[in-house]
Amino acid sequence: MAVYTDVSDDELRAFVALYDLGEVLACKGIAEGVENSNYLVTTEAGNFILTLYEKRVARADLPFFIALMEHLAGQGVACPTPLRGRDGRALRELCGRPAAMVTFLAGMWPRRIQPFHCAGVGRALAALHAAGASFSMRRANDLSVAGWRRLFEACAARAGEVQPGLADELAAELALLEREWPQDLPVGVIHADLFPDNVFFRDRTVSGLIDFYFACTDFLVYDVAICLNAWCFEADGSLNVTKARALLDNYRQERGLTAAELAALPLLARGSALRFLLTRLYDWLNQPQGALVRPKDPLEFLRKLRFHRRVLSSRDYGLDG
Amino acid sequence: MAVYTDVSDDELRAFVALYDLGEVLACKGIAEGVENSNYLVTTEAGNFILTLYEKRVARADLPFFIALMEHLAGQGVACPTPLRGRDGRALRELCGRPAAMVTFLAGMWPRRIQPFHCAGVGRALAALHAAGASFSMRRANDLSVAGWRRLFEACAARAGEVQPGLADELAAELALLEREWPQDLPVGVIHADLFPDNVFFRDRTVSGLIDFYFACTDFLVYDVAICLNAWCFEADGSLNVTKARALLDNYRQERGLTAAELAALPLLARGSALRFLLTRLYDWLNQPQGALVRPKDPLEFLRKLRFHRRVLSSRDYGLDG
Repeated sequence: MAVYTDVSDDELRAFVALYDLGEVLACKGIAEGVENSNYLVTTEAGNFILTLYEKRVARADLPFFIALMEHLAGQGVACPTPLRGRDGRALRELCGRPAAMVTFLAGMWPRRIQPFHCAGVGRALAALHAAGASFSMRRANDLSVAGWRRLFEACAARAGEVQPGLADELAAELALLEREWPQDLPVGVIHADLFPDNVFFRDRTVSGLIDFYFACTDFLVYDVAICLNAWCFEADGSLNVTKARALLDNYRQERGLTAAELAALPLLARGSALRFLLTRLYDWLNQPQGALVRPKDPLEFLRKLRFHRRVLSSRDYGLDG
Repeated sequence: MAVYTDVSDDELRAFVALYDLGEVLACKGIAEGVENSNYLVTTEAGNFILTLYEKRVARADLPFFIALMEHLAGQGVACPTPLRGRDGRALRELCGRPAAMVTFLAGMWPRRIQPFHCAGVGRALAALHAAGASFSMRRANDLSVAGWRRLFEACAARAGEVQPGLADELAAELALLEREWPQDLPVGVIHADLFPDNVFFRDRTVSGLIDFYFACTDFLVYDVAICLNAWCFEADGSLNVTKARALLDNYRQERGLTAAELAALPLLARGSALRFLLTRLYDWLNQPQGALVRPKDPLEFLRKLRFHRRVLSSRDYGLDG
């Protein structure tokens, strides 16, 4: 739940006047998303989303994100399309923060995941990867294996507050992942945060992907591993093999996975589980005084991590080979 | 900032299907309001507001609020109009809570109050009072003088945590108000919470009044006193006489104030200041663990209360007589 910055009516009117959208009719802060302040702005031209980028998003990365959304939308991916003002710019300032207006996407994100959702996400993810192949900008994944030790060290001393022995378990896991992380899998633009609240559906069909503010250049199959963790586990921590198979089969119908990618999947899934475990653990241990955001449970991803540690091959995800 | 209840896509679709609004295209939790959960629901028929009534609003009062909004809208007041489903009902259940869909109002609430805003509110308030005259239902104001002692007693022991000596000052004020509160001023439907975030403007004109969930039957001029406190003070606690005059003059152009109402205004303004001071103090001292709402400063209303205590007559509010 976000909205950190309160935009005044005067400031908003002046901002929207830079676009060809007519008069502002309404503006409501949206209680979703954690990183940025989002507003649903209704003008005479319809509904739009206004995002103010709060400090967690690096200013230097914004041109990458804006260009990526423009590129993907141009390739037919249903994602927010940045609007350009009459001056041709998509990125500007509002209330002292970088800000952009993007198109509004129809659809709702699913609360109760069913196999057809996983199938839809698999297809949409593969289409995203295909559309990204012609995107020329690059952005390193600062939340992949090279970034985890710094996060771990910031949490290790107090990790035991969350669960006794957690620091030792994470230290061993991290050492293994640093040692065995693959080097030469197919690389491209990945979303890197395609959780259910970032995927809109209309009926049973994906109608939009949002929140590209973790997107980066990394192994494509690492994005698959992230989705496996985000979509295919039940509340009790068990993998739902039907969902995993739906996700993977549908991905592979759009973009095949090489033998090397399939072989790497269990290790990448461990890595992805560790990544979300570490960032959630950090947020859990560093809640700002009076924060309006309730941090997410880091241990959800410890259960997923342990599951993947026991996996022998990608067959355990319901695949044939 | 609200949204307490998370409505799933499935539940929302089933709910909206009871109305003639076409398919749900989107639903965003709105980060405004404190009492209820509000969603901006976009359907094929346009934008609507869905409200889930949380426990602070008494179920027994909801038929009054719904009927009042219907009545006022029918009288031409720009306020949310409850939608009736195909079964004729406006009030139903969603996620175990009472819920209603209402029309979406264009406009934005003003962050930086200028005299023209106060003029607009004065006119709109008088028009609301006129439209309410033909409304037959009644609801007692449980946050008027008869309700304050209970609130005071719940806070008195810890009021000193907020400001030393506060309990004594409030006790004396409360005793005086209980003794001198008027008995026979003109009565009607009042909004009772017409703060800036409940009044939408387009350009310089009021385009909508929202949030009728404190509306009740009480002295009409008490509503004027509430608006005086809500709209006419500067951040440093001083009354802006230009704003007060704009509010009162414009109100009186639509609905005259009797000599008795004018004479009672300073005392009613003290009472209104005490009412918001007490509810904010209660919320300040009783913040739920992990609350997502930051309570408002009670002392803002202590400064206003002290101002009104020094007022000799309504002339001090900029009026001629």
